Amino acid sequence: MLGPEHHLRSPPATTPGSLRSSISFPGSRRLFRLPRAAPPLRGKTSGSVLASAPGVAAASRAPEPELAHREMARELAYHAEARLGARLLPSAVPAEVAEFRNGAGNAVGSLDVRRGSPGSTIDFMLQSSLHCKVPNGAIDITSLLIFLNASTDAPHFLMELIQGNPTSIVVILDLLPRKDLALHPEYIEKYYENTQLDRQREKIEELPQARPYRSQSLFVRSACSPTAILVSIDCGQGGGSIMDEVLRGQLATAAKELLQIWLDTCADHTSKMEEGEREYMIKRDQMVRSKSIEVDLTSNLPRMFDPDVSSRVIAEIRKAFGVQEA
Amino acid sequence: MLGPEHHLRSPPATTPGSLRSSISFPGSRRLFRLPRAAPPLRGKTSGSVLASAPGVAAASRAPEPELAHREMARELAYHAEARLGARLLPSAVPAEVAEFRNGAGNAVGSLDVRRGSPGSTIDFMLQSSLHCKVPNGAIDITSLLIFLNASTDAPHFLMELIQGNPTSIVVILDLLPRKDLALHPEYIEKYYENTQLDRQREKIEELPQARPYRSQSLFVRSACSPTAILVSIDCGQGGGSIMDEVLRGQLATAAKELLQIWLDTCADHTSKMEEGEREYMIKRDQMVRSKSIEVDLTSNLPRMFDPDVSSRVIAEIRKAFGVQEA
Repeated sequence: MLGPEHHLRSPPATTPGSLRSSISFPGSRRLFRLPRAAPPLRGKTSGSVLASAPGVAAASRAPEPELAHREMARELAYHAEARLGARLLPSAVPAEVAEFRNGAGNAVGSLDVRRGSPGSTIDFMLQSSLHCKVPNGAIDITSLLIFLNASTDAPHFLMELIQGNPTSIVVILDLLPRKDLALHPEYIEKYYENTQLDRQREKIEELPQARPYRSQSLFVRSACSPTAILVSIDCGQGGGSIMDEVLRGQLATAAKELLQIWLDTCADHTSKMEEGEREYMIKRDQMVRSKSIEVDLTSNLPRMFDPDVSSRVIAEIRKAFGVQEA
Repeated sequence: MLGPEHHLRSPPATTPGSLRSSISFPGSRRLFRLPRAAPPLRGKTSGSVLASAPGVAAASRAPEPELAHREMARELAYHAEARLGARLLPSAVPAEVAEFRNGAGNAVGSLDVRRGSPGSTIDFMLQSSLHCKVPNGAIDITSLLIFLNASTDAPHFLMELIQGNPTSIVVILDLLPRKDLALHPEYIEKYYENTQLDRQREKIEELPQARPYRSQSLFVRSACSPTAILVSIDCGQGGGSIMDEVLRGQLATAAKELLQIWLDTCADHTSKMEEGEREYMIKRDQMVRSKSIEVDLTSNLPRMFDPDVSSRVIAEIRKAFGVQEA
């Protein structure tokens, strides 16, 4: 929940800047302009110009398309579910939120939330995916979040994949810290140094197709860990098969490694904390959750989906996150 | 005080990784190896092999060489001093620390510390520069730090320039946050968004010679702001004149802008804080100061200078930072 906003607003800011011009992200740019120029994404159930365009009609019938990145996220989720077992309660998302569509037929999404069972360290596991046709292609956003509750100060698991076209994707993959790292070097050591997380980041950033990705939100940058994988992977024109290879190869490997590290060192771990320390952490967690919903979903879902649909989805995510509307 | 350690240990880690091999940083690598293979840097006052080598003899007589980066730092410091005026007390550094040398004649350094006057927001302004000959060249490190006291929560000013050869330099330029940014979006807004600091970062990262620089210390990465300029600028073989242009041009401009923003929005600013908040900030500040001395000076100065010299210098910096030996 830390990424899509930028892609809906503008092409990703990357560094070094000299490479910026080589990055194409047409989906996001067009999606941003579309709702402002005309409201084709809202409340058009039939007969719209868009709905009659080839591809859009198909999207209104078809489920979300199969993508290598989505498959990768699903495999990760399976693995997490298998390991967490009974610590996850069954899904409690109403049917109309489990899968949802835009009336105009150009956007489809799914959301699944499983709460942690009482006594476990798990707060919730959230999987979501969004697919939205835009004039020149589609934008696909897939998220996998496993958040812990206040019985532990261990980091949350977070993965977001934002694909603007078949040859480029933004990857946000992190164990999201729950403490002020500049005050807690022991926390850095325990969760980030001893686990050698930085190696995973290095491996991905070494890919010739990878460029650093900077969120436009300074808050998002501040919330991530110093080992976060924040990259834009661009395989260039005709690079669809390279993209698939990277996704199924190096990226899938890094994501699995991160999840495994998280499962081994964070998921089972309760923490002794002084009451003040726990209170601080809860306050911090709430801020990170609220802000990420604010900069991300509440400003963008309404651009993709009819207002009633996006409200229902956002309400369900707020419920999972345990934050009220501001 | 957030940078040199990496350069003394290994070449800078840069991203994207594919570019790594193009970055040369011979000075640092050699400097790292030198003290382990043989102790030529320590306690040789005369007659050593090194001292008889051309250049080294010159260094033992000569002051630190004039470098574009050093000139740039000095201009910045003048500007800060002019603006801060009587808020800075006269320099209180003993002569043997104001300028110091290695007995072997291959290293020379200077340190100046001016405390803030009573009632001002300034804690101290510190300027330091180190020059150390290594077999194939020299390493030059220049720092300018202006730290605020606990009457304000405004960020500190920090600049470090680490030049391993005439054509490459690492730049660390930041307004160092004093609050946990993930809990304080209003702090991000006030000091980092409203001041449009990110534009300065972007301008530097857009330089074709710039590559992102990642400190090997996760703590250092965590202590920096999300708009920190952390780059390695490499002008390639024979690029000495380009380096000078960049230093005197874009880099000097960005550094001046940052300093101006800091002078305008941070230096005069006292903050109302609840007592708990202030205590937290003081604790955090102490940690950042201690850790930066630990990962940086205490492990590296003794490699460049005789033990008695480095102890004196470190003691003086500890005094400025207000932190005791761990």
